[in-house]
Amino acid sequence: MAVMYNRVALLGLGLIAGSLSLALKRGGLAGEITGYARSPDTRATAAEIGLVDRVCDTAHAAVKDADLVVLCVPVGAMGALAEEIAPHLKQGAVVSDVGSVKKAVIEAVGPHIPEGVHFIPAHPMAGTEHSGPRSGFAELFDNRWCLIVPAEGSPEPEIARLEQMWQAIGANTERMEVEHHDLVCAVVSHIPHLIAYTMVGVADDLNRVSDSEVIKFSAAGFRDFTRIAASDPTMWRDVFLTNKEATLEVLGRFTEELFALQRAIRTGDGDQLFDYFTRTRAVRRGIIDAGQDTAAPDFGRANKPKTSEPNG
Amino acid sequence: MAVMYNRVALLGLGLIAGSLSLALKRGGLAGEITGYARSPDTRATAAEIGLVDRVCDTAHAAVKDADLVVLCVPVGAMGALAEEIAPHLKQGAVVSDVGSVKKAVIEAVGPHIPEGVHFIPAHPMAGTEHSGPRSGFAELFDNRWCLIVPAEGSPEPEIARLEQMWQAIGANTERMEVEHHDLVCAVVSHIPHLIAYTMVGVADDLNRVSDSEVIKFSAAGFRDFTRIAASDPTMWRDVFLTNKEATLEVLGRFTEELFALQRAIRTGDGDQLFDYFTRTRAVRRGIIDAGQDTAAPDFGRANKPKTSEPNG
Repeated sequence: MAVMYNRVALLGLGLIAGSLSLALKRGGLAGEITGYARSPDTRATAAEIGLVDRVCDTAHAAVKDADLVVLCVPVGAMGALAEEIAPHLKQGAVVSDVGSVKKAVIEAVGPHIPEGVHFIPAHPMAGTEHSGPRSGFAELFDNRWCLIVPAEGSPEPEIARLEQMWQAIGANTERMEVEHHDLVCAVVSHIPHLIAYTMVGVADDLNRVSDSEVIKFSAAGFRDFTRIAASDPTMWRDVFLTNKEATLEVLGRFTEELFALQRAIRTGDGDQLFDYFTRTRAVRRGIIDAGQDTAAPDFGRANKPKTSEPNG
Repeated sequence: MAVMYNRVALLGLGLIAGSLSLALKRGGLAGEITGYARSPDTRATAAEIGLVDRVCDTAHAAVKDADLVVLCVPVGAMGALAEEIAPHLKQGAVVSDVGSVKKAVIEAVGPHIPEGVHFIPAHPMAGTEHSGPRSGFAELFDNRWCLIVPAEGSPEPEIARLEQMWQAIGANTERMEVEHHDLVCAVVSHIPHLIAYTMVGVADDLNRVSDSEVIKFSAAGFRDFTRIAASDPTMWRDVFLTNKEATLEVLGRFTEELFALQRAIRTGDGDQLFDYFTRTRAVRRGIIDAGQDTAAPDFGRANKPKTSEPNG
């Protein structure tokens, strides 16, 4: 494929930045990829494994002459990082990010973006429970969605180019309005993560059930929660702190429903439970039909292929 | 392997009975396997695909001369089924079950077991989100746990034989006291299922987020919930109705923790969130070390191998 950006700067060198770099290299989409991470250890590891073409010791060195700068740090760190790099951004450069929350990122980063630089927030909805510079892989974005939430006044050609880049590394793209993005993500990602964290915490707490039992018998349903609840704590702390409004709204709906089912259990209302459980089956069917999962009966299976290939 | 039971009768011909039959055939562990299901359609399908050696039109015909009778129906149906077959059970026969709840099953089935027949409740902790006579596969129990909860007075040799049978079809076995079993299962299975059902229901309800969006973007964490929430509604209704005490207790703990995290979000207490999310990572590590899952970064991946093999 043709080079889409002569120089790409990735700030933060974790799972997403690493996977983005490897995917851009796979596609030959970037002339040079520079990278910066605050932690010297992370920079040393990234340099050692050749995660990017050039690891820089400062953010401003990394963004110098960059045509595309992607903020790949936790949402809570983006504002300060944007302020730090602002004076060093090239005229006409595009600044994007990979944050799971968009309203807070736009509010924190937007004001620092200089005249003549284009801010185009994005959110690749892909990840694993692993983090750090060694966790990336080129296939992470294959067949995943990348939501584009353009800031006001972003030029259409630059928005289209960023979308084409994400498509070129395997992702599907969709433009979304900022508030809607944060609500949708609260439903399909943020609250499911909070619930999984909570359930794992409860299991870990219950003294009458030993940790070894929880671990031993996890395949009965609990296991899927533990994978979700193993995700990066810093990233998720920031998600909840910065998407407060939507997460609290969805959480309110969740507890409302949960209490209704709890009451059905207490009162022995089998019909309500049955009807509820029947309705949720249809959602699953839709996901399989949409190609976002398979019907392979692997629920509760012991071993999954040790591979990062989407087609296992 | 040698035949362990000359005649095995499976009552109920769904995922577990079907998988049990196929696993027993795979190991050559049963002389003849008879089967019965209340639904004529299920019986017809089972006969058509040769799920068992002989499909019977009545439960008592199926259990006639059986050395092992396994109740594979929803927990709520076991009492009536036990009463129905009781007069037809052979002296010295073993009656077992596969229910996810044990206290209620023992209370419902126990009183109907005749003198000279041995009741040995069991709970194979394995399943998929699929159900029905076509959903079974011989590998379902490989490397899964089967919990044995012997009723009072069950002769040790018969308990050992049943354990050996489960081991012979690939399962690990562990004996557990009945109340403890129901609590452990509430933690690792029942409440995780209830929560998943609830989250999927909430997503399906939220008018401002379309079903298509929920489905499209499900890989961001929600997807694992939908698989769990696609499990058999009848089975799960009965689980909650019959394991009321333990599920309400664990549910109380869960909502208590969830409210603490909700408050942390509302008040912006990032440290509490970070500490909580960090702790849960250790549980995940233990599960991988215990061989109950792999660290393959398949979270959010689009396609899993379409296979029922545990080593897929």
